[in-house]
Amino acid sequence: MYKIGIVGASGYTGVELARLLVNHADVELTVATSRQYAGQQLADIYPSLRGRTDVVLEDVVVEDLVQRADLFFTAVPHQTAMNIVPALLAAGKKVVDLSADFRIDDAEVYEAWYQEHIAKEFLDEAIYGLPELNRQKIKGARLVANPGCYPTSIILGLAPLLQAGIIEPTTIIADCKSGASGAGRAASVATLFCEVSGGFKAYKVGSHRHTPEIEQEIGKLAGQPVTVSFTPHLVPMTRGILSTVYAGLLKEVGQEEVDRLYDDYYRQEPFVRPCAPGTFPATQFVRGSNYCDIACKVDSRTNRVVVVAAIDNLVKGAAGQAVQNMNIMLGLDEGAGLGVVPLAP
Amino acid sequence: MYKIGIVGASGYTGVELARLLVNHADVELTVATSRQYAGQQLADIYPSLRGRTDVVLEDVVVEDLVQRADLFFTAVPHQTAMNIVPALLAAGKKVVDLSADFRIDDAEVYEAWYQEHIAKEFLDEAIYGLPELNRQKIKGARLVANPGCYPTSIILGLAPLLQAGIIEPTTIIADCKSGASGAGRAASVATLFCEVSGGFKAYKVGSHRHTPEIEQEIGKLAGQPVTVSFTPHLVPMTRGILSTVYAGLLKEVGQEEVDRLYDDYYRQEPFVRPCAPGTFPATQFVRGSNYCDIACKVDSRTNRVVVVAAIDNLVKGAAGQAVQNMNIMLGLDEGAGLGVVPLAP
Amino acid sequence: MYKIGIVGASGYTGVELARLLVNHADVELTVATSRQYAGQQLADIYPSLRGRTDVVLEDVVVEDLVQRADLFFTAVPHQTAMNIVPALLAAGKKVVDLSADFRIDDAEVYEAWYQEHIAKEFLDEAIYGLPELNRQKIKGARLVANPGCYPTSIILGLAPLLQAGIIEPTTIIADCKSGASGAGRAASVATLFCEVSGGFKAYKVGSHRHTPEIEQEIGKLAGQPVTVSFTPHLVPMTRGILSTVYAGLLKEVGQEEVDRLYDDYYRQEPFVRPCAPGTFPATQFVRGSNYCDIACKVDSRTNRVVVVAAIDNLVKGAAGQAVQNMNIMLGLDEGAGLGVVPLAP
Amino acid sequence: MYKIGIVGASGYTGVELARLLVNHADVELTVATSRQYAGQQLADIYPSLRGRTDVVLEDVVVEDLVQRADLFFTAVPHQTAMNIVPALLAAGKKVVDLSADFRIDDAEVYEAWYQEHIAKEFLDEAIYGLPELNRQKIKGARLVANPGCYPTSIILGLAPLLQAGIIEPTTIIADCKSGASGAGRAASVATLFCEVSGGFKAYKVGSHRHTPEIEQEIGKLAGQPVTVSFTPHLVPMTRGILSTVYAGLLKEVGQEEVDRLYDDYYRQEPFVRPCAPGTFPATQFVRGSNYCDIACKVDSRTNRVVVVAAIDNLVKGAAGQAVQNMNIMLGLDEGAGLGVVPLAP
Repeated sequence: MYKIGIVGASGYTGVELARLLVNHADVELTVATSRQYAGQQLADIYPSLRGRTDVVLEDVVVEDLVQRADLFFTAVPHQTAMNIVPALLAAGKKVVDLSADFRIDDAEVYEAWYQEHIAKEFLDEAIYGLPELNRQKIKGARLVANPGCYPTSIILGLAPLLQAGIIEPTTIIADCKSGASGAGRAASVATLFCEVSGGFKAYKVGSHRHTPEIEQEIGKLAGQPVTVSFTPHLVPMTRGILSTVYAGLLKEVGQEEVDRLYDDYYRQEPFVRPCAPGTFPATQFVRGSNYCDIACKVDSRTNRVVVVAAIDNLVKGAAGQAVQNMNIMLGLDEGAGLGVVPLAP
Repeated sequence: MYKIGIVGASGYTGVELARLLVNHADVELTVATSRQYAGQQLADIYPSLRGRTDVVLEDVVVEDLVQRADLFFTAVPHQTAMNIVPALLAAGKKVVDLSADFRIDDAEVYEAWYQEHIAKEFLDEAIYGLPELNRQKIKGARLVANPGCYPTSIILGLAPLLQAGIIEPTTIIADCKSGASGAGRAASVATLFCEVSGGFKAYKVGSHRHTPEIEQEIGKLAGQPVTVSFTPHLVPMTRGILSTVYAGLLKEVGQEEVDRLYDDYYRQEPFVRPCAPGTFPATQFVRGSNYCDIACKVDSRTNRVVVVAAIDNLVKGAAGQAVQNMNIMLGLDEGAGLGVVPLAP
Repeated sequence: MYKIGIVGASGYTGVELARLLVNHADVELTVATSRQYAGQQLADIYPSLRGRTDVVLEDVVVEDLVQRADLFFTAVPHQTAMNIVPALLAAGKKVVDLSADFRIDDAEVYEAWYQEHIAKEFLDEAIYGLPELNRQKIKGARLVANPGCYPTSIILGLAPLLQAGIIEPTTIIADCKSGASGAGRAASVATLFCEVSGGFKAYKVGSHRHTPEIEQEIGKLAGQPVTVSFTPHLVPMTRGILSTVYAGLLKEVGQEEVDRLYDDYYRQEPFVRPCAPGTFPATQFVRGSNYCDIACKVDSRTNRVVVVAAIDNLVKGAAGQAVQNMNIMLGLDEGAGLGVVPLAP
Repeated sequence: MYKIGIVGASGYTGVELARLLVNHADVELTVATSRQYAGQQLADIYPSLRGRTDVVLEDVVVEDLVQRADLFFTAVPHQTAMNIVPALLAAGKKVVDLSADFRIDDAEVYEAWYQEHIAKEFLDEAIYGLPELNRQKIKGARLVANPGCYPTSIILGLAPLLQAGIIEPTTIIADCKSGASGAGRAASVATLFCEVSGGFKAYKVGSHRHTPEIEQEIGKLAGQPVTVSFTPHLVPMTRGILSTVYAGLLKEVGQEEVDRLYDDYYRQEPFVRPCAPGTFPATQFVRGSNYCDIACKVDSRTNRVVVVAAIDNLVKGAAGQAVQNMNIMLGLDEGAGLGVVPLAP
């Protein structure tokens, strides 16, 4: 039984980690921090957890925390993470960081999109935690950088095509739609119910910080640097990301050939589900689960493919993928604690 | 490993049963019927289940079905159930019926609110499947009548007060609110997204068919016949019932005394959670789970209590409670397969 | 052409006033204040108004504002209003106050539910601005206290019954449901999209500040002091209140008699619509409009009536009623600027 | 005072026409047909209209209808429209057809995407009713083909760029998102509240019937045949379309230059609102109104533009644009009856 800590347990990602961990047979949630709610039970802030955990939220005192857990999830904003992670590592702990701080290989790129990086020495070591691509590296890692929600859906959606060399990487356009939980639990006018409900909008057009992460990983798969048009949108729903990705075809391919490509590529993967031929994903069919559902349509009229990928942004896009990484790092069954069936309807 | 069948697997209650059963370690889903979708995989109708079950929907041919399962859930409309259940029982199978057909003890009352009853001979035998009240009887039952969603929330909300003799049964008013999944999955204008979203309404004011069920069970607890004012409302959400129940106090009681009453009454119950003092339930904190969260406010200004009870109508209000009954009937752990943590947010 | 000012124009009630006023032929919006957004155009904060008004938000400097408008709406929180209204009146302006500060006749009652009152000398003069009950008094008023949203629906719902002496005032229970816009536009975790969407809850059970206002006005209609059980609930929708009100019958009445009572009582009223017999209101059918839709069901089984009343909380429950009051105060057509047809679907 | 008829008044588009027409000073709604609800008042089906119109729904008997109105809206499905429109024209009536039957110039293209066309002789005469492009032709028209909802947003979004020759027409990708009202009011499982709420999906990927209409009109503006990648998505909201359109730049342009281009292009247009620089549209800010809000972002990193356009699909995307066309055809003020301010929040 491993002891697990969550740094930043009162945000949506933090409590989602708790939801998964309290149903995980091989680990125990022993530490949960929250500056704002220190001293209160997590289950008092989230009555959904009542009767499932009596963990008490506490302030972040690293030297104290490290005594009481073997692996830590850092579910805090970027910049905060880089201030905490090095100390956790120094104490000999494993870390899955859910912020952006260790995802970007190139510190200059990071600093161009975010701010100064004060823990650059860990960038080389940090493994980009997409198990479908990096499983072996994750196994031995001390520090895993858990991928962003948008990048997860885009990269899993494009990987088979890029590996097969079917699409032109310079033509990739990712039009992505997310539920409001992606914006977190901070009080803010922009994410009030009345501002979001019954409406739909684009935001950060051409300037969202997931762009360099997407380009870095797509570039690796393509074997060349790429720029990607990436537009996020806000959907009036709580959970879910659906990414619609367009790319020009480099050669003529048939629909069946592409269907087979995806089936083969993801055959062994427990959490990626290519859709039945002719059908497309919907976020409601992955809600609450760690699945990524994918379909790829060959549009011969326009000589493009349209890839549609759906995840629950809080699960495969954050906490679920983090638990999957934890399982791999600790040598547990990769699917342990992740058996939740999607909640539909 | 018990083999389980679902008659009526393509409605919301049926697929919810499937969601719970595919994660249940001690049973196997071997039969699932649907007239409309016979021949297709359940997971093709509900891609949420893709990779979790390959059960194929079939038409209802009782003599054939009974060969392949030990216990059946009948998740079909009232009147349809009474045409199927007797044959299942005759074949020696156990049955949890989720319709209203075997909930009402008195056939005349049933016929006044529904239609002619053609299987009255089973009314005496059928056990009203509210485990918190009837656990012992359920243990030995062949036929369990799974309670209605509204009645479940109201009865669990009032039971401690009625048993303690604190409230006047003739003053009970139950103002109840349900998500749209309670209306089922039939194509209908009234439950289209555009008709329900962004609006709120009362329906069947003073005439909903759950009324006699509520009055029957409240009457048993009160030890006298009662009439209850019951008004259902439609909330623009998919899952959840919140019942707000008013009753006049027979004697002066303090808030702490009532809090203690609920804590004591439900101390041993795995699925009833009295709220922390001073807090009230919300449907989002039970979503997807088998919990019933309850609070009771003493309002000395008006000499009344206000009881607020929340359930997920598809779980504790239908499929979850049915699985709980199945567990009891089969001698399994009562909570087996019901460990889902509420999905919040 | 009257000049009109809105003090507190950037909240939901303020912008709703602006929405109505920019389409009002007889008035001009000349002043709009907002501490937070001073210096910006209102249409920049609410792009819905782009092209309809170029009014610039400004800080509240009463001596300056009063030069530029004839009548002011004060759409600010209670306690703030009492600090501004006296100065507006002193400058000879008419005021429609949308806060609670001048609704309660008895300063002691106000202070028991709110806080100290520092402008008690205006309580006698302030007219409770429910045109259906107080039209004549509003005509000559300098200061109108615009009713609360919940009280408006409850009082209009019960007035015919109370005037006819059919119900027992001590038995009134008002179970009310509101959209999230009632909570205002302040950044807050409790009203984030993810906290409200897909859920339903009761709040301030037995302690909501609209209680004394409801009891005061019901008491006047009943001709005796009354206490009322009042429970507000939060519906996952933006606009709308639906109140379900229960009361015991003092004598036997038939459904047709009660239908006729409501039709007669509201025959001349432009904004109250008794429903067609046998039908009930829904908030979506009044959305965006100044209507109050009402139905009353006689339930002879329980010897009670169930009254259901629906309004748009931002219109008939706030800004629309305020404009209706303004029209009466200024001698304009009472329905001017209020011709919006409900937005359904 | 012109007399107006609506053929197909009980669908969402039909009732939206009624909502606009009952507030239009220069016309009177004299005819409203509905096979399903013949004999009932429209206001009984849509209580939102109670007190605003007493028009009674009737079956479609063309020779009878034409006696009682000067202009007809045909708000019926494609294929039904082509069976009715010729008779209306033959009786000397003007027609605004809201179906797809007269939008496609080339009958072969129509028949490739829809079905056989039985009224081809009117295709030449029918004017594509986008006032911003075809105002002069609409003035003299007998038959106006009201544009589709998706095409309206895409064409208005791209017109300034295409006219200016800035973008490469072969690179256009339109990723579009619509509320559920676009699917109409027919009973259907796919548009039930529980199927749509809380989820997001793509549909008809690469095969939606608005494709040829988009390509036809874009082709005219581009002066060359074009194919367009068009992917519609279903948003869990009732009203609104937001289209995100990508295109490659043919030359280097600055953001300010493009902002000026849109401002100039739409300066005289009453219903197109270029957004304030640096801001983007949201459907909630056009809800219920006839506005189209547009922003165009120059993304020099990728050498593309991203155009975002928002409309209310039932208004500028259907009924509002139809009334705008009617106003032009009848020589009325183009904005008459269309002064509704967007309902936000």
